[in-house]
Amino acid sequence: MGLNIYWRWCLYGDYEHYSGVILMAQVDVSSVVSGPVANQLEKFFAVRVQSMHASEIRELLKLTQQPEIISFAGGLPNPEAFPVEEIRKITDEILQSQGKQALQYGTTEGLPRMREEIAKWVTRLGIESTVDNNIVVQGSQQGLDIVSKMFLDPGDNIIVGSPTYVGGSNAFEAYQGVMHQVEVDEDGMNMDKLEDKLKELNKKDIHPKFAYVVPTFQNPSGALMPEDRRKRMIELSNEYNFLIIEDSPYGEIQFEGGPIKPIKAYDDGGRVLYLGTFSKILSPGLRLAYIIADENIINKMIIAKQAVDLCSNTLAQYIGAEALTRGILKPHIDKIRALYKHKWELMRKGLNEHFPKEHVKWVEAKGGMFTWVTVPDYLDSSDLLKVAIEQHKVAYVIGAAFYPDRSVKNTMRVSFSYPTDEQIEIGTERLGTVIKDAIKE
Amino acid sequence: MGLNIYWRWCLYGDYEHYSGVILMAQVDVSSVVSGPVANQLEKFFAVRVQSMHASEIRELLKLTQQPEIISFAGGLPNPEAFPVEEIRKITDEILQSQGKQALQYGTTEGLPRMREEIAKWVTRLGIESTVDNNIVVQGSQQGLDIVSKMFLDPGDNIIVGSPTYVGGSNAFEAYQGVMHQVEVDEDGMNMDKLEDKLKELNKKDIHPKFAYVVPTFQNPSGALMPEDRRKRMIELSNEYNFLIIEDSPYGEIQFEGGPIKPIKAYDDGGRVLYLGTFSKILSPGLRLAYIIADENIINKMIIAKQAVDLCSNTLAQYIGAEALTRGILKPHIDKIRALYKHKWELMRKGLNEHFPKEHVKWVEAKGGMFTWVTVPDYLDSSDLLKVAIEQHKVAYVIGAAFYPDRSVKNTMRVSFSYPTDEQIEIGTERLGTVIKDAIKE
Repeated sequence: MGLNIYWRWCLYGDYEHYSGVILMAQVDVSSVVSGPVANQLEKFFAVRVQSMHASEIRELLKLTQQPEIISFAGGLPNPEAFPVEEIRKITDEILQSQGKQALQYGTTEGLPRMREEIAKWVTRLGIESTVDNNIVVQGSQQGLDIVSKMFLDPGDNIIVGSPTYVGGSNAFEAYQGVMHQVEVDEDGMNMDKLEDKLKELNKKDIHPKFAYVVPTFQNPSGALMPEDRRKRMIELSNEYNFLIIEDSPYGEIQFEGGPIKPIKAYDDGGRVLYLGTFSKILSPGLRLAYIIADENIINKMIIAKQAVDLCSNTLAQYIGAEALTRGILKPHIDKIRALYKHKWELMRKGLNEHFPKEHVKWVEAKGGMFTWVTVPDYLDSSDLLKVAIEQHKVAYVIGAAFYPDRSVKNTMRVSFSYPTDEQIEIGTERLGTVIKDAIKE
Repeated sequence: MGLNIYWRWCLYGDYEHYSGVILMAQVDVSSVVSGPVANQLEKFFAVRVQSMHASEIRELLKLTQQPEIISFAGGLPNPEAFPVEEIRKITDEILQSQGKQALQYGTTEGLPRMREEIAKWVTRLGIESTVDNNIVVQGSQQGLDIVSKMFLDPGDNIIVGSPTYVGGSNAFEAYQGVMHQVEVDEDGMNMDKLEDKLKELNKKDIHPKFAYVVPTFQNPSGALMPEDRRKRMIELSNEYNFLIIEDSPYGEIQFEGGPIKPIKAYDDGGRVLYLGTFSKILSPGLRLAYIIADENIINKMIIAKQAVDLCSNTLAQYIGAEALTRGILKPHIDKIRALYKHKWELMRKGLNEHFPKEHVKWVEAKGGMFTWVTVPDYLDSSDLLKVAIEQHKVAYVIGAAFYPDRSVKNTMRVSFSYPTDEQIEIGTERLGTVIKDAIKE
């Protein structure tokens, strides 16, 4: 079996003990299949499937599932952040009073009440919209899939961050989009670098269809893009004529201050498609998210979604709409912010205490669930991970997974949302030891 | 606005009063968009979007929403068929005892318990499988989307019925598959015609990747494929080397007799991908369905689904798994069968009493939710529909929507699952009058 080791991030959990990540490696499919059809599977698969490589390295996977492993790898929200009891009450009342409707098919674009509540919800962020500007989707990942399906022909060019969210690049890869990476620094995507890249591409007559950006507490880097860069991005999109796909799953989880205006709030030309979600502030298991965009784009999206899944989960939309109507989210978000801020402060303390500061840097998180650690460039975080898991019982996601070209080897995504306080204290110490040992060698 | 009238089926409902269908027409997108980006939208869309035409004819739509319209158009299950109270109890218990897990992200392939229950559930039908042979999807439509994504490059050839389920053809069209139609008669897809078609295609060096078939109470025709045709289809798939996509949403709803063995039960070469769903026997709003296939195909599908939506709704899977564990579905299915059988008998009586039998034929339903009416070939059921809605306050879906080439104009899909008893009696009389009047003219 041809095992080409590079790590690939993937959701994982066994529902009792979440390790939050599968460690994956590229495996040549033809070598793992068997049986009458299996031998000819390659003949049947579409070309795009060739780029869908992944299979667990089962031994390492088993290790990460062991309770003694402390995982900073997961991208999972802390279940303490779910308003379970409120959801239980709402659900019970819905099933009592409107059970038949809540269990029936719904309209493709979403429950009208849910769409109304979404339009209201985003006004806090400075987004002016009506029900006709949004569509309900089953998680932002579905939004990314539909966006890719609508805009990408094989070989179409797009801009992504370097690093960028791997769920985005997976979606774009599956439609054979060609990704051009633009540096993401502590302030998010660098707009000077973006302009340079656009000029460079334009000279080759390459005109990207869209730029994909996670401006607020980016996954993986935790970076927050300031207002001037947001405005500049709109200007560049007008000048170079591309769309902006703004993905904002962590937008609500800032540790201090009022709501952060998304790029969409500055959109004067209908160029921004804003992906919002209730996964981090209500429940990810409900798969409840939405896209805000120009009405003409939404109309096409509704037709595209019809072929994708007919409609989103109806019960989840009833729950979401009712939660919004009752106003339970705003006080609840305050709790989540406090929780994650506390987790970050513990992690920051651990990083300061246990990491070799002269050799290592990290992003000072102002919100969200992640920090981004850069180790000396002679180290490969993929090699470190094996040592970390096997010898020190601590896990993270290697940064290379977040670069479509896998060009950067010395970064790691470290999540503070899910582990316990104790795990953060012990885990940072363990990870600090791994890095210090590697530097010594 | 260039309005090219052909009808297109679409899910529709306002949650209070389901008319169950939007009547759609082909509209040139460039003529309905406006605004700075809108003017250049065509430039941004992928080629596949060109084939996604649809927009409501709002006036007719409004009509179908009026309470006085009797609709045989909907493909909706009767909400009397939802075990609302059982679902309420199960949901409440889950949210009390396992709320945090049920609201968290899940594994892409599905909740392990759900997969186990699915593997058990299909043994009744003669399908031998393990958890490794299935993947949980958010409705069979998502299954069709993922199958298309995995197997179809633009221009790839496939076989579909004539007529065929429009959700299937929509999914295949969205991946630019080329559909070759094979006649569906009262016994489902005609295997002699299939062999002829395969020979004809082979001569042109065209080798279809898969055949898509709904063998049990087909949507739209209601036809049931007998055992000999099922076996023959497996033989042909081996001989001509194609996969079979077996879609079976109505498989449980036979009016008499024991379970009907799916084609998958005869599959000796791992060629059949079986799409099963809980939409018609538990709740469509939960979007809970599955695919059973060769393990190697499932493994690739898991990777594909990861880019599509990360994971299915977790709460819905907890509910489904618990419903299966408790065994509430089997007795409940008996109720659904009795309900739909009763509805069909009423409709059959109405057809016999009010339809001009010398000019019209219909499929004698043995299960499912539909019958298929063929009017004289000098009539166009699209013209009839306008008269039916506007003058006689009765609706159905025109058959042309179910032929990818729109070649057949004189058929109509008539659903008996959703209307009340009284509506069936009055509606068949109204529809009979529409047809009789048209024949007279």
